[in-house]
Amino acid sequence: MDVVREPRQDRSRATRQRLLEAAIECLAEVGWSGSTVAVVAERAGVSRGAAQHHFPTREDLVTSAVEYVSQERLARLRELAVDLPSGPGRTQAVIELVEHMYTGPVFGAAIHLWVAASADERLRERVLVLEARAGRETHRVALELLGVDESVPGVRETVQATLDLARGLGLANLLSDDSRRRAKVLRQWARMLDASLTSGS
Amino acid sequence: MDVVREPRQDRSRATRQRLLEAAIECLAEVGWSGSTVAVVAERAGVSRGAAQHHFPTREDLVTSAVEYVSQERLARLRELAVDLPSGPGRTQAVIELVEHMYTGPVFGAAIHLWVAASADERLRERVLVLEARAGRETHRVALELLGVDESVPGVRETVQATLDLARGLGLANLLSDDSRRRAKVLRQWARMLDASLTSGS
Repeated sequence: MDVVREPRQDRSRATRQRLLEAAIECLAEVGWSGSTVAVVAERAGVSRGAAQHHFPTREDLVTSAVEYVSQERLARLRELAVDLPSGPGRTQAVIELVEHMYTGPVFGAAIHLWVAASADERLRERVLVLEARAGRETHRVALELLGVDESVPGVRETVQATLDLARGLGLANLLSDDSRRRAKVLRQWARMLDASLTSGS
Repeated sequence: MDVVREPRQDRSRATRQRLLEAAIECLAEVGWSGSTVAVVAERAGVSRGAAQHHFPTREDLVTSAVEYVSQERLARLRELAVDLPSGPGRTQAVIELVEHMYTGPVFGAAIHLWVAASADERLRERVLVLEARAGRETHRVALELLGVDESVPGVRETVQATLDLARGLGLANLLSDDSRRRAKVLRQWARMLDASLTSGS
């Protein structure tokens, strides 16, 4: 009905993107068992046939969705990082930024996928590939933003601990708003991180 | 068929316990959607009617199971703590002990429940009560084992960060054996913890 007609390729890309975003919303709200291709297609306002053309199975749709949003989040993290302060306060600003990746609906969706994969061999293999890549990239971005050198003993593990802590805090936030407690823990963590990264211990 | 007959009360308690243990196994293996009272009853070798007498709904069964094993784990943690070394090395031994609570099938079961609760209002309320209690108790045990004083600024948040980190590491371990990486992160964490708790920062 649109007067301006999109070229077919753009239309196809837009359909795909709507499906990916609807899959994330759906996963975060009703979990894996409720997120079938048909349900996601309806939410996206896309016909079931068109949805299946893009994503033949739920595994394809959901893993693509989580990968897509992970990439988007990393890109956004890099953008926001441009405005970070240098000097004192930077560490805390960095870990708050990183923590944002582990709160909100996108992390909610990822955790549903993760947990579904733990009970499903075939899905697990796909999710492991995805998570290994996302983990490496997030680690690299965190190193860059903190401005630290991984060849110094302990630095690699300290940055890993930061990401593991961020994930644990994200999990604690899943059932109820945990932001006040989280803010205090992150402040303390920033202090410990500064002490550890400057002493090189 | 047993020659020695158990008193009715003991039999009832044993049935209940078999159901709780089967619920944990079931939850860890097939997740929330597959863990109905009927499925768990069958796994436990208990009639569906008897199972429903103990636990009228799946919510009752699964939340009771997670609460039961959380209590068991805490009791076990206190037992094991008796043999912990004092002096150097104690911090690492404590956090390794704490970390054990977040790996293995019990944590797998709890996370399935947790994630199911995030998409189910009624279940969420029950799980929040449960988690608040378990969280407080785990925090208290961690304080005791580390031998630290929460009235010192920063100590409370440092201990909370330890438990959040443990949860994040547990989550990372859900899909594949992550124990080598985890051991390194925990060693580094023990060093940072010792530095932070002795400096009081």
